Amino acid sequence: MNSMVNKLALGTLLVCAAAQGAPLKKEKPSMTPALDHYTRHLLLGDLWQRPGLSPRDRSIVTLSVLVAKNQNHELPFYLKRALDSGVKPGEIAELIVHLAFYSGWANATAADAAARAVFSERKIDVARLPPARPAPLPLDEKAEAARARGVEENFGKVAPGVVQYTTEALFRDLWLRPGLAPRDRSLVTVSALVANGQVAQVTYHLNRAMDNGLTEQQASEALTQLAFYAGWPNVFSAMPVFKDVFAKRKE
Amino acid sequence: MNSMVNKLALGTLLVCAAAQGAPLKKEKPSMTPALDHYTRHLLLGDLWQRPGLSPRDRSIVTLSVLVAKNQNHELPFYLKRALDSGVKPGEIAELIVHLAFYSGWANATAADAAARAVFSERKIDVARLPPARPAPLPLDEKAEAARARGVEENFGKVAPGVVQYTTEALFRDLWLRPGLAPRDRSLVTVSALVANGQVAQVTYHLNRAMDNGLTEQQASEALTQLAFYAGWPNVFSAMPVFKDVFAKRKE
Amino acid sequence: MNSMVNKLALGTLLVCAAAQGAPLKKEKPSMTPALDHYTRHLLLGDLWQRPGLSPRDRSIVTLSVLVAKNQNHELPFYLKRALDSGVKPGEIAELIVHLAFYSGWANATAADAAARAVFSERKIDVARLPPARPAPLPLDEKAEAARARGVEENFGKVAPGVVQYTTEALFRDLWLRPGLAPRDRSLVTVSALVANGQVAQVTYHLNRAMDNGLTEQQASEALTQLAFYAGWPNVFSAMPVFKDVFAKRKE
Repeated sequence: MNSMVNKLALGTLLVCAAAQGAPLKKEKPSMTPALDHYTRHLLLGDLWQRPGLSPRDRSIVTLSVLVAKNQNHELPFYLKRALDSGVKPGEIAELIVHLAFYSGWANATAADAAARAVFSERKIDVARLPPARPAPLPLDEKAEAARARGVEENFGKVAPGVVQYTTEALFRDLWLRPGLAPRDRSLVTVSALVANGQVAQVTYHLNRAMDNGLTEQQASEALTQLAFYAGWPNVFSAMPVFKDVFAKRKE
Repeated sequence: MNSMVNKLALGTLLVCAAAQGAPLKKEKPSMTPALDHYTRHLLLGDLWQRPGLSPRDRSIVTLSVLVAKNQNHELPFYLKRALDSGVKPGEIAELIVHLAFYSGWANATAADAAARAVFSERKIDVARLPPARPAPLPLDEKAEAARARGVEENFGKVAPGVVQYTTEALFRDLWLRPGLAPRDRSLVTVSALVANGQVAQVTYHLNRAMDNGLTEQQASEALTQLAFYAGWPNVFSAMPVFKDVFAKRKE
Repeated sequence: MNSMVNKLALGTLLVCAAAQGAPLKKEKPSMTPALDHYTRHLLLGDLWQRPGLSPRDRSIVTLSVLVAKNQNHELPFYLKRALDSGVKPGEIAELIVHLAFYSGWANATAADAAARAVFSERKIDVARLPPARPAPLPLDEKAEAARARGVEENFGKVAPGVVQYTTEALFRDLWLRPGLAPRDRSLVTVSALVANGQVAQVTYHLNRAMDNGLTEQQASEALTQLAFYAGWPNVFSAMPVFKDVFAKRKE
């Protein structure tokens, strides 16, 4: 299969990859020459090298998709790539915990097992992962009160349990865990929403992401990363919402 | 990791769990202290102990999510928990068959294999599972005729095959199988719809669920259970539909 | 379990299956008599024998669902069935590459591994699979320019990267690969969209499919196949869109 690879392009890829300390290639090439070719050249050799979003952010987007869609067979490769791109082990642990809430508990427990294996292979000391109950980040009480009031008015009688846990477990606990910056939590959340086709929740979380420091360029380029990892249809369904959010924030 | 667990809280959990005959804890703790902490205290120790929905119903909701989302790695734990919570082996078998139709055939075949392993471990005699063709429950011919007429008028020319199987395989066969009560089939169906973000189908099936005996309080509390197992975004997309159904039924 | 199978019906199935060279039965029967019964009689013995859609097309629809939903445990059985129904190994390879773009990269890498194992068992020479960069099919430059212009106007500023790859990687590359006919690529795409509940993208791709030669009867019968493999709710959400597309094309 290698004989089909454009040697020059591969050489360039190797140089780029080495310069970034990124893994050089997938351990196991695909059976299909076309899939192998696109993976090497279009994804690893082109998409991942684009400006507008750092390799670290691309790793966060990609891991979020894999966890949110329970695609665990690709986690070892992209977990290592994330570590090599500057995502810290503790940030990976927090990404997984975050997606327990934002994509369903069982996705997180599967990803946890995959991360455990990679961390062990890399001799990362899991005892140094973020503790269960760290000192929380400061909370914007006014903004949180407004959010909680809106949800209470809307759904307080429909599902009081959901409303209660949304406040206590999410916005007064999970989002305040210091092991992953709020901007990164937002990038994780938005990536998972796009990956699972949950466009109805994108408006709130994309605005929150941009309030937390994600730039429009980064959000735009995250869509490009998501096209390949979450699939084109999910991105085409999300683009109108991104367009609308971008426009409204400029008004 | 255990050293990080609040000893008092764990003690309380052990007492609650023992009182219910529920499994005490996950066999394998998570690598991540936070995920482990939330699983023990927020989910098993708090969510599962809430009133408003029995542990048996919570097991039905949770199994439905795991099967409908093909999250088989958590099935062994939650299948055992379901058995310990009073879900009968035959009801589990029917839940799986039901979700073959309502979430895609391959989800059911995977769950079937997981259940076989658990039943074998528990020495449950699979020869006593519900037969392929049991004597059916009585059918409300008038209501079924009205349903069939509506679907025929709407889609009879678009997809006659779908319309035919909807009548013959679903409403005159699957739903009449006596091994799982219609109310429980509805709880399975609604849980799967929420878990897969299929809000367009929730109105019909939530109404059917409530016609079949699911109370508003149980439906509301099912959303709370679903928040953790299907993920927050799916529940936030479903809540407006639940709200609307609850309101319209009171008019 | 076999003792519960209606002997006469099984006999008929065996004759039908043998006549088509199709695999006679699932290697491993389900634990659940009902699931086993429905699989043998309702699916393999009835659905797959319906006119309106060839066994080859049914295999394409079914494989598309399994890949797009990452249900790899059923791939060995249905890959063999596809080969036995006349889907060529190179077409299967192209289906997998196509769904890398249309359902997310990791679904394709998992399916690639499953196909490799089946091809090896069947002694299929993977060196004869379609090359990475074949001579492309001819392009309708005018239609493609119109498509590109529409997408550029709509999303060129929102996500220039997505717009660029949509043109370069999808419509000027992937869709022109000769190893899978455009009509079959469309059937793969539409099946994946329905399987993942992405109804917002169905209008464009169903029209494209019918422009590429898929008949209304085939599209309708594909919905019937999808009901069982993608689950009823996805098909009920897609039927209004199919109905609308069918109607508009007759105006």
